[in-house]
Amino acid sequence: MSRLEQELAEQPEALQRLLDRQTENAADLARLLRRGDVRYVLIASRGSSSNAARYAQYLLGRAHRVPVAFATPSLYTLYEQPPRLDGALVVGISQSGESPDVKAVVEEARAQGRPTIALTNGASSPLARAAEAVLPLEAGEERAVAATKTYLNSLGAIALLFAVSTGDEGALSELHALPARVAEQLALSLEEPVELEPRPGTVVARGINYGTAFEIALKIRELSGLLFEAYSAADLMHGPVAAIGPGWPVLAVAPPGPALASMRDALAALAARGADVTELRLVRGVPEWLSPLVAVIPGQVAAIRLARRVGADVDAPSGLSKVTLTR
Amino acid sequence: MSRLEQELAEQPEALQRLLDRQTENAADLARLLRRGDVRYVLIASRGSSSNAARYAQYLLGRAHRVPVAFATPSLYTLYEQPPRLDGALVVGISQSGESPDVKAVVEEARAQGRPTIALTNGASSPLARAAEAVLPLEAGEERAVAATKTYLNSLGAIALLFAVSTGDEGALSELHALPARVAEQLALSLEEPVELEPRPGTVVARGINYGTAFEIALKIRELSGLLFEAYSAADLMHGPVAAIGPGWPVLAVAPPGPALASMRDALAALAARGADVTELRLVRGVPEWLSPLVAVIPGQVAAIRLARRVGADVDAPSGLSKVTLTR
Repeated sequence: MSRLEQELAEQPEALQRLLDRQTENAADLARLLRRGDVRYVLIASRGSSSNAARYAQYLLGRAHRVPVAFATPSLYTLYEQPPRLDGALVVGISQSGESPDVKAVVEEARAQGRPTIALTNGASSPLARAAEAVLPLEAGEERAVAATKTYLNSLGAIALLFAVSTGDEGALSELHALPARVAEQLALSLEEPVELEPRPGTVVARGINYGTAFEIALKIRELSGLLFEAYSAADLMHGPVAAIGPGWPVLAVAPPGPALASMRDALAALAARGADVTELRLVRGVPEWLSPLVAVIPGQVAAIRLARRVGADVDAPSGLSKVTLTR
Repeated sequence: MSRLEQELAEQPEALQRLLDRQTENAADLARLLRRGDVRYVLIASRGSSSNAARYAQYLLGRAHRVPVAFATPSLYTLYEQPPRLDGALVVGISQSGESPDVKAVVEEARAQGRPTIALTNGASSPLARAAEAVLPLEAGEERAVAATKTYLNSLGAIALLFAVSTGDEGALSELHALPARVAEQLALSLEEPVELEPRPGTVVARGINYGTAFEIALKIRELSGLLFEAYSAADLMHGPVAAIGPGWPVLAVAPPGPALASMRDALAALAARGADVTELRLVRGVPEWLSPLVAVIPGQVAAIRLARRVGADVDAPSGLSKVTLTR
């Protein structure tokens, strides 16, 4: 078994470990989210951490009713014109904690006296040292280049921050029930995997699963080298749908919830164009706000199977390394 | 000649008209940008207006040293949980001004007493009526489905806001010299067009031209139905590059400026993978902050030529309509 498949299978226990070890710490650092002078949240991230950041954009936005924005790291590094961050709570997300541009944003915020939180699996990484508070991802060492359990635990850490900072006991108990649901989803997805043809395709979602679409497309792309892309159902309809025609594979992330009606409209339009639409099969009964933690799994499994089919080594994707250092 | 090519050719005069008619109005509404309680800018947009919004993210961020964030319209519409917008200046960008979700964000901001500006070619559109202040794009009627002059004038309006709100006379005179440079760029690009093979590809940029990459990819995709995608040079290196191999077409937007070194690194890595990298040829001497207004043009021209090559009707792209109403 590949390292990647081992790590895929470790996800329920990795999430359990995060919840066991970090619920108390999260409750403590949630005070930063509740600071009266926080008017918006600014997230710095790259790669699959940016897909997790999209989850934070919806979840923390809904929880705290503040906008959640993404930093433009090049303003801090290349252009050397960092913004004034009055009113910001800054969150850096980096699985390795090594990303220099993510660290640069957090350092600048801290120098400006703003609250900063690092979400990282590298508990003593440069990012962790730069931030005022750290929420370690507790995923254990991840050796495969393609992130699985660190991605899931990034979502778990965001969900945990949501539950503890809103003081919503119901949400916290839903989250604590989730490792078992992740295990069920894993079993379901391994038993009835989506089999993709080795050709390019599109992953579509909307609302809270927007980042899930990006993560699934990235996983397929990293592992098999096939061109997959992600779109919000709304953005796709504003032009890019023109490239989608008969037989084009579309994976749809469409759990029950407020985004479902909009997804159904888009999927009907895609089907009318002759696209080959597959809805990812998800375990039932997971609350919508936690659906990204299960919905990514059938995509991870599909990506691994497709990589096998094209003869790629899932532990050594073409030309990639575990830590990417962009300036 | 197609309507699209007429509108492509009208861009210098459309930009000139915007500057002639709106410089005074822009100077007046720039007071909203300078309000002491503005801690960040929040932009709502869809489609090619979102590509213009990326220009605003860099330019207004650098000018006012405040973060520029993108709204998540579904929080206002589908989820009905709009954020508190204390500290926000809200800008809605919609070429038609008809987009219901963009209007919803602006309406919510106005109801919360926040300053709002609409950038729209529909000077009496629903978006224009919803906002406290309007900067009309003055592009004239745009009949082709694919936006050209409204896109350019969206950038022009953002550049104008930058120049007048910072009170930078040098910047304002650089901007006022730009219609002539746009005309030169148009002549250069029509004379020496990039000829693309009818196959999928990637557009790469970084920093202030990040949105240019998205707009060029969208234009190619809308007009020819070929799959083109856009990436920041930094994000591409974090995994998605795995799908790029020998012969893969890469268009690079790489004008001189702070982002050039990072672009050179990425282009070298792409060339090492065997990608077929073409740097878009740009007229010289345009200041970096205005480079997106010329850099999009060779992409527009390449998109039209490619559409002709695949036999597409550039005035009636497959399955698209001029105004897309997403809820």
